[in-house]
Amino acid sequence: MEIKPYKKDFEYSYTLGAFPTFELLSAKPCEVLGIYASSTFTDMDKLRAKCDEKKVAFSINDKLINRLSDKGNVYVAGVFKKYSQKLDPSRPHLVLVNPSDMGNLGTIIRTAVGFGIMDLAVIEPAADIFNPKTVRASMGALFRLNVHRFSSFEEYMSSDEFGKKEGPGKREIFTFMLNGKKQLTVSDCPKPKLYSLVFGNEAAGLPDIFLNYGTSIIIPQSEYVDSLNLTIAAGVGMYMFTHE
Amino acid sequence: MEIKPYKKDFEYSYTLGAFPTFELLSAKPCEVLGIYASSTFTDMDKLRAKCDEKKVAFSINDKLINRLSDKGNVYVAGVFKKYSQKLDPSRPHLVLVNPSDMGNLGTIIRTAVGFGIMDLAVIEPAADIFNPKTVRASMGALFRLNVHRFSSFEEYMSSDEFGKKEGPGKREIFTFMLNGKKQLTVSDCPKPKLYSLVFGNEAAGLPDIFLNYGTSIIIPQSEYVDSLNLTIAAGVGMYMFTHE
Repeated sequence: MEIKPYKKDFEYSYTLGAFPTFELLSAKPCEVLGIYASSTFTDMDKLRAKCDEKKVAFSINDKLINRLSDKGNVYVAGVFKKYSQKLDPSRPHLVLVNPSDMGNLGTIIRTAVGFGIMDLAVIEPAADIFNPKTVRASMGALFRLNVHRFSSFEEYMSSDEFGKKEGPGKREIFTFMLNGKKQLTVSDCPKPKLYSLVFGNEAAGLPDIFLNYGTSIIIPQSEYVDSLNLTIAAGVGMYMFTHE
Repeated sequence: MEIKPYKKDFEYSYTLGAFPTFELLSAKPCEVLGIYASSTFTDMDKLRAKCDEKKVAFSINDKLINRLSDKGNVYVAGVFKKYSQKLDPSRPHLVLVNPSDMGNLGTIIRTAVGFGIMDLAVIEPAADIFNPKTVRASMGALFRLNVHRFSSFEEYMSSDEFGKKEGPGKREIFTFMLNGKKQLTVSDCPKPKLYSLVFGNEAAGLPDIFLNYGTSIIIPQSEYVDSLNLTIAAGVGMYMFTHE
């Protein structure tokens, strides 16, 4: 199989760097097409043992590593098939509406997994979740969560994955907006059992129609900033909902 | 005055983009050496009025804008003298020990100002706070806070700016570390009157000696991530300490 520098329409992508590659091997061994290392990689025995354990093909290939890494400084790559997953309707979800920056998307995925939110709905158009830049910014946390792309928020809400809309055990929606109606506070942050936390695009935020879904929330901030960075807003919001 | 592409040893730096330039004019008009716009800038009247109000030199200079902006997409620049400030000993401080990435530094500054922490100690060696990349990532929030660079944490602690170390009204130190002794929780986050929140380098975190200063804190996180991104940890920590 010939591995080329990534393009969005490929059926495969790859990890760059040792940490995300080990995460790929641990969490998604069945999707791995091959693991490649440069001959100068210093932790070769550990990597080879992990590949043996997971029954994954391993080879040393300096030429391939050089071709895949734009800026050098990469000694390991893991090629994997892109996959599709269903979200778990019984667990909290993170919903990102039109995120546009792959670095932000990866950082938010890393934060979600760090805070135990293991299901992510991405509303398209959106940055490519499988681009090696996203994978790298996530430090491989991408492989730990279920991620499903939807063409609209309505499609997400009407899916089986959303779960119950009404009655006991229903999912509650919280939309984070600069014109949100409820201030996020430490002392009385909502603690529903089942919820979706929804964040908008880096530049535009969520459109006003999202004021009508569930509860809209603003994170209090001073007049001296235009807004918080999306990754920070998502980090604070997820921390508050997942911690007692 | 000839304005050249930025180098760290220059006595001046500049904002790139309209938002940080307006912030510079609002918060630090006395440090401004000149404001420049490209002839295609669409909000010229507002910018000219602001410069008049602040008694700052304004000119249209396409050549200069082109030279300063690496990637295009910049229509306004504000050149300013680098300045030095004292921290306010009666207010909370953010302390960043050896931050190495200008984008992260700027994002953390924007978050601090957003959450009302207006005094920042930077322990060197550190990313350049005045580099145009830092200024831009801060969205100009840099101009809103007091920032002072120290050569060591000990120098910071023994400065007048630190304030009282003992007795009533003393400053309490909280160091954020992966091996911190106290878990950050929503229900019993410390709420001291006067405190410093201390965060380490992106890759290395804080050295173990910081376990001995005040209270060391870990933000609870799952086993599936190596650590949180520095900007996220700082964002969550600052939010928790500044909000009721």
